[in-house]
Amino acid sequence: MNCNNNCKKKYLSSKWFNDLICKSNLAEISKIRGCLIFKPYGLEIWNQIKNKLNYLLKKTGHDNYYFPLLIPITDFNKEYNHIKGFSKECAIVTHRRLNIKNKQIFIDRNSKLKNELIIRPTSEAIIWNSLKQWINSYRDLPILLNQWSNIIRWEMRPRFLLRNSEFLLQEGHTVHSSKQEAISHSIKILNLYKDFIEKILSIPVIKGKKTPKEKFAGAKTTYCLESVLLDGKALQIATSHFLGQNFSKSFDVKYLNQNGIYERPWGTSWGISTRLLGALVFTHSDEYGLILPPKIAPIQIVIISIIKQIEDNKIIDKFVKKLIVCFKKNKIRFVYDNRKKYTPGWKFNEYDMKGVPIRITIGKNELQKGLIEIFRRDNRKKKHIKIISLKKKITYLLKNIQNNIFLKALFVKNKYTKKIDDYKKFKFFFNSFHSNGHSNGHSNGGLIYSYWDGSKESENKIKEDTSASIICIPSKTKSNKSHVGNCIYSKKLSKQRVIFAKCY
Amino acid sequence: MNCNNNCKKKYLSSKWFNDLICKSNLAEISKIRGCLIFKPYGLEIWNQIKNKLNYLLKKTGHDNYYFPLLIPITDFNKEYNHIKGFSKECAIVTHRRLNIKNKQIFIDRNSKLKNELIIRPTSEAIIWNSLKQWINSYRDLPILLNQWSNIIRWEMRPRFLLRNSEFLLQEGHTVHSSKQEAISHSIKILNLYKDFIEKILSIPVIKGKKTPKEKFAGAKTTYCLESVLLDGKALQIATSHFLGQNFSKSFDVKYLNQNGIYERPWGTSWGISTRLLGALVFTHSDEYGLILPPKIAPIQIVIISIIKQIEDNKIIDKFVKKLIVCFKKNKIRFVYDNRKKYTPGWKFNEYDMKGVPIRITIGKNELQKGLIEIFRRDNRKKKHIKIISLKKKITYLLKNIQNNIFLKALFVKNKYTKKIDDYKKFKFFFNSFHSNGHSNGHSNGGLIYSYWDGSKESENKIKEDTSASIICIPSKTKSNKSHVGNCIYSKKLSKQRVIFAKCY
Repeated sequence: MNCNNNCKKKYLSSKWFNDLICKSNLAEISKIRGCLIFKPYGLEIWNQIKNKLNYLLKKTGHDNYYFPLLIPITDFNKEYNHIKGFSKECAIVTHRRLNIKNKQIFIDRNSKLKNELIIRPTSEAIIWNSLKQWINSYRDLPILLNQWSNIIRWEMRPRFLLRNSEFLLQEGHTVHSSKQEAISHSIKILNLYKDFIEKILSIPVIKGKKTPKEKFAGAKTTYCLESVLLDGKALQIATSHFLGQNFSKSFDVKYLNQNGIYERPWGTSWGISTRLLGALVFTHSDEYGLILPPKIAPIQIVIISIIKQIEDNKIIDKFVKKLIVCFKKNKIRFVYDNRKKYTPGWKFNEYDMKGVPIRITIGKNELQKGLIEIFRRDNRKKKHIKIISLKKKITYLLKNIQNNIFLKALFVKNKYTKKIDDYKKFKFFFNSFHSNGHSNGHSNGGLIYSYWDGSKESENKIKEDTSASIICIPSKTKSNKSHVGNCIYSKKLSKQRVIFAKCY
Repeated sequence: MNCNNNCKKKYLSSKWFNDLICKSNLAEISKIRGCLIFKPYGLEIWNQIKNKLNYLLKKTGHDNYYFPLLIPITDFNKEYNHIKGFSKECAIVTHRRLNIKNKQIFIDRNSKLKNELIIRPTSEAIIWNSLKQWINSYRDLPILLNQWSNIIRWEMRPRFLLRNSEFLLQEGHTVHSSKQEAISHSIKILNLYKDFIEKILSIPVIKGKKTPKEKFAGAKTTYCLESVLLDGKALQIATSHFLGQNFSKSFDVKYLNQNGIYERPWGTSWGISTRLLGALVFTHSDEYGLILPPKIAPIQIVIISIIKQIEDNKIIDKFVKKLIVCFKKNKIRFVYDNRKKYTPGWKFNEYDMKGVPIRITIGKNELQKGLIEIFRRDNRKKKHIKIISLKKKITYLLKNIQNNIFLKALFVKNKYTKKIDDYKKFKFFFNSFHSNGHSNGHSNGGLIYSYWDGSKESENKIKEDTSASIICIPSKTKSNKSHVGNCIYSKKLSKQRVIFAKCY
C-alpha cells in the first residue's frame, strides 16, 4: 500500500469507502434514510454469490421458498425474546389506503388495520406459523428451507453497505426431530459458509459463537464468522443459530414421533446478506479501487486494444475473435472494451477501480512478435507473455490471484490480531490514536484476544471503557488451545480467551 | 378433455384451480390476506422465467438495479394520476418501533414518522427521483434499467396466483431523449414479451392497447398482451407503458440537448409478474394436473424404473447411468426417481400432476429387447421406442410438445373468440349460463370482438350490464383489418372492433 502521507488520510476513511462504492457502480445512498440503491455491478456480484451459494444449499438438501413480506404483529409477538430484540427497529404498516383532496394526499384514517403488520426484519415468525400446518409426524422431518429476500431493520446508525435499513438476505430455516441433529446442522452450515467465504470471496474468517448478550434474539446459541476489515474494525460475516425449541414452543409446533408420542421439534436459522459486498470492498481494496477475487468477479478478464493506426484495428480484432472463442469455451467471464471515445489510460483506471483481476492489452507491434501484455490487478504487475502459452497462463493466474488475495487479507488479519492481558494496555490500545494513522481520532484497534470471566457485567464495563465488544468466543482449534487465565477486567478465573474488537 | 359429467363441475372450478396449485407444490395461500407462499416448484418455474427473460433484457441493453422497497409519500404524491390510481391499495408504514409492557406488545406512538412511507406498488416514483440526479446531458440517454422485486398492492378481491396483494415483479424503466424513441421502445418490449410468452410459455396472446379508462395510472398509452384462460375469462399477461413526459415533469427531470437547450426526457415502464405462473396453470392444465411447456419446465424428463425382482435393479441402474450422461451433455433437466417407498403408479400420478413433459419408464424385459416406454404428458400417449433412436426422439419430442401445447392453447383461444354485433346477443352471451358448463352461475363468456364508439360512457354502461370490460383495442394486423361499424351499445360510428371480456 504505497500511498504517500498526503493520501493516507483519505485512503480507508469513511469518505474514501463511500466514494469507492459509488464510483465502482456497486451502490448509491438513497434519499430514504438508511436505504440504498444497488447498482448493476453490485447486483452482478451479489448474483454471483447468490448462484454459487444457492447451488451449495440445494446440494445439501435445501429448497427455496418465498414467504410474505408482512408479518402480523400478533404472530411476531409470540416469541418473546425474538420480538424484544427486534422491537426497536421495525417498519410498521398501520393503514392501507390514501385519500386525495384538492390534490393533497393524506392517509385514510378509515383504512386503519385491526392487526398491524411488520415488514420482516427476518422470517422466523412467519415461517414457524406455516411449519405448524406442515409438520405432523416424524416423517415430515427434517424440513430444510431457504429464502432469498429483502428485509427491513430500522438501523439507528446506518453505515453504507455494511449496516443498512433495507438489505438483501439469504435466510435458511430448518426443523429437526432431535436436539443433536439441529445443533449439528447449524454447525454444518457455519462450516459451509466458512468454506464459501474463504474460498470464493477470499475473506479469512474466525469461527466462534456469540456471548449471550450478543446472540440472535430468540436463539439458544448463535454461531458466527467474523472478519477484520482494512481499517481494523471487525465485521460479522455470517451467523448460524441453534433455536432450541423456542419457536416450536411459541408457535405450538408438535410432531408425532416413532413411538406415537407428541414431541416439539428443534430449529435452526442462518443467513448471509448484501453486507458481504461491503466486506469484499473493505477487505480487498487498495488506493486504485476494488480488488475482486476471480471466482466472484463479474468480469474476470478485460481485453483492451491499443490502436495507433486505423490499420491496427483489423489485425487486433481478428486476434481478439480467436481469444473470445477460447474464453467462451473455458467459461471465462470477459469484456472486450474497444470503445473509441475513451483512451486506453482511461480504461485502465476504470477497470482498476472495478477490481477486474486480469487485464490483457493488445497492440499491433507486440502481436506481430507473438506477445501480449498481461496485468494482474492484485499485485499490479505487468508482463509480456507468449500468445501460445496464454491459455495455460490464464488458468494459472486466475487460481494464483484468487489465492494471493486471500493471503494478503490473511496478512492484514494477522497484523491486526494481538493478545493482551493487561487492562491498561487494553484500554490504551482501543482508545489511543493508533500508529496505523488511517483513522481520524480514536484507533479502530483490531482483534484482541483476552481472557473474560463470562459475566455480562464485565462485558458491559469493557464496552463502556473502550467501545470494544466481544465479537466472538472462538472455536477451539489446534492452534488455539484453551488455557486458563484471569479476566482482563475482573481478574476472575477465565477458561479461554475471547475476541474483543470495535465492530460495524 | 375427456372428463365425465361428474368431474366437470370440479374441473376448472375455483376450488380445482386452488387445489392444483397447492398439490403441485407451486404455492400456498398464507394467513396474511391476499398474500401467498411461493413453494419450491413454483419458485423454480419463476426462476426459469426470470433467467430466460433476464438474458433477453440484458441482450437488449438493460441493466439490473435494486431500488428501495419504501417510497416517501411526498415523492409518491408528485405524479397526480399515478398516486390517484394506486391510492386505494397502498400498504402504509407510519411507525418504526414497538414497545413491550407486561409481555404485551404495542406500537410506540413516539416513533411516528414525519414523512410516512408506502411499500412500492410499482417503482416509478422512487426511480424517477434518482433519475433526476443521473440525467444531465443528452449523453446520459437513453437509460435502460430493469428491476426484479416484490411489490404490494392491497387487492380488494384477491385471487390465488392471479391477483395477489404481494407478488414478484419484473419492472423495466427507461428514459429517452425523443418521444418517438420512447414509443418505439415500449412497443419493442411488448414484442419481446409476446415472443417470450408465446415461444417459451406456449401461451398465445393478443397484442393491443388499453382504453384510457383501463390504462396504467400515470401513462399516456398502455400497450398490453391479453390471453384467455381455460374458463373463458381474460387475463392481462404483460403491459408496456409509454409515460410521455408525465414523470419527467412531475420529478423535474431535464437534460441539456445537443444544442445546449434544456428539454424534458420521455419515459417508458413495463412489466410481467408471478401472475404468469397462474397463467401457465390456467392455460395448459387438464384434469390430471399441470402441463408444462418443456422450455420452462423445471423437470423436462422424469425417469421411473419398474423393478419386479431385486436383480432388475442392477441392469436398470447401469442403463440409467448412461442415460444421465447423455441428458447432462444435452442440458436436459431431468429427475431419476428410484425411490422405493412409492409405487410406479403413485409416481406416474405425481409427475402428471407436476406437468413433467416426458416420462420414461424402464423395465428389465423391455430393456432386454432394446426398448423403453415414453409417455408424453401433453396428449397422454405412450409409445415403446428403440433405445438407439432415443436421443433423436427426445430432441424431437421436446420441440413437438412445446409446439403442441401452444396449438392446443390457440385452439381454446379461438374457440372462445367471437364477433358479436347485436347488444341483446352480447348481453345474453355474458349473462347466461353458458353451454361449456364449467361455471356455476353466469358464463365467463370469452373474448368478444365488437364495435365501440370510444366513449367512457358506453364502456361503463356495458360493464354495468355485463361485467365485461374492454380488455384491449387490438393492434391492426393483416387478419384483423379495421372496418368501420356501429358501437354495440350506442350505435354511434366506430372505427374498429375492440375486445370485451370478463377478466381476472
